[in-house]
Amino acid sequence: MDPTDAEAACFEAGIKFGTLYHQFAGTPVSPASADSLAVAMEEAIENQPFCADCSVDILADELDTTHDYTELTGEYMEVRMRIEYEDQVVHTEMAMEEGYPLMRVVDVVER
Amino acid sequence: MDPTDAEAACFEAGIKFGTLYHQFAGTPVSPASADSLAVAMEEAIENQPFCADCSVDILADELDTTHDYTELTGEYMEVRMRIEYEDQVVHTEMAMEEGYPLMRVVDVVER
Amino acid sequence: MDPTDAEAACFEAGIKFGTLYHQFAGTPVSPASADSLAVAMEEAIENQPFCADCSVDILADELDTTHDYTELTGEYMEVRMRIEYEDQVVHTEMAMEEGYPLMRVVDVVER
Amino acid sequence: MDPTDAEAACFEAGIKFGTLYHQFAGTPVSPASADSLAVAMEEAIENQPFCADCSVDILADELDTTHDYTELTGEYMEVRMRIEYEDQVVHTEMAMEEGYPLMRVVDVVER
Repeated sequence: MDPTDAEAACFEAGIKFGTLYHQFAGTPVSPASADSLAVAMEEAIENQPFCADCSVDILADELDTTHDYTELTGEYMEVRMRIEYEDQVVHTEMAMEEGYPLMRVVDVVER
Repeated sequence: MDPTDAEAACFEAGIKFGTLYHQFAGTPVSPASADSLAVAMEEAIENQPFCADCSVDILADELDTTHDYTELTGEYMEVRMRIEYEDQVVHTEMAMEEGYPLMRVVDVVER
Repeated sequence: MDPTDAEAACFEAGIKFGTLYHQFAGTPVSPASADSLAVAMEEAIENQPFCADCSVDILADELDTTHDYTELTGEYMEVRMRIEYEDQVVHTEMAMEEGYPLMRVVDVVER
Repeated sequence: MDPTDAEAACFEAGIKFGTLYHQFAGTPVSPASADSLAVAMEEAIENQPFCADCSVDILADELDTTHDYTELTGEYMEVRMRIEYEDQVVHTEMAMEEGYPLMRVVDVVER
């Protein structure tokens, strides 16, 4: 069967998360550069279709600074997005859960 | 509202597409290395949860070989995936449409 | 033979270019988001050892906006870096040459 | 001053390492998919100019399999390359040193 609008909206939400994570994971990041990276990630992802809002928090205080900087991985970021597709609104988020960067759909509503 | 199983399945499908595209876009690729890259992409994505099958075709004949190799972009690949989440099965694909690598849900069915 | 300081400095310069290009190529970018991406790229690369300065220009006017945004590739950026390793200073740059994003060492000097 | 051939060779070697690392870091990898990924990395990098040989070892036994698969990072790979530029041959390698994926020039010789 063709996807419903809500299913298509969730598919679009997933694309944005996969994009954000795998485009930027590995980027050299330090407490001093965390903010500019977070802003660039938000603005990059908001370019994609149906992404109404993307909010990225890089946990500057958690970054491993043994070598002054480290590589961005899921343990250092929290992400929330709002996807709007036709009359469906999907809220999603990513945060660490038991050592794994879990991406999940928080809410699917008709607007 | 919490997502239905079908919506969660579509979200998972989207994650895989975003991952595949943004992890591997930019990889140096030539007709001779297209096959090993396609296999690595399939096996990498099949590691992710709920990805029952991932099939990647790199269009070796289409690759720009002016400089012997080029960078992988959407115009050079066709991708199909099957996602299984609870009792839902989602088929998705990516192909070029009007110069844009369009990712879409082909089918959502209960198994 | 072990590398000289100048050779090691050039090796370090190359690492930064490969990192910058392949970390960020593929990022969704539009005229509106070009600036935040350029700043994030500069600050990310300056985290790496021996990178005294990194300057990234994203050519916002050149971006293909047929689909509102495009993916970052070499044709849309100009990059200059200064690497300082021991008493050696290396200037490098990347710009398009005959359709290929050419990275080159401009100058190696003792300071 | 313009770079010597040996310096240019070292610059080229650095580009390959930065490319390899930042193109593939973050790729989902498991013991079962380690081999196909290593082969794809080798063949991708050997496409680049002056890369005469690239050898990648993904340490399948070291991979964190708590969640069945993990993301590729420097701690899971060992890399060796031979760069040939004009009459210069550069050997380079990457391996972990004190928790940091250290890339270094092993040898610069005239052939």
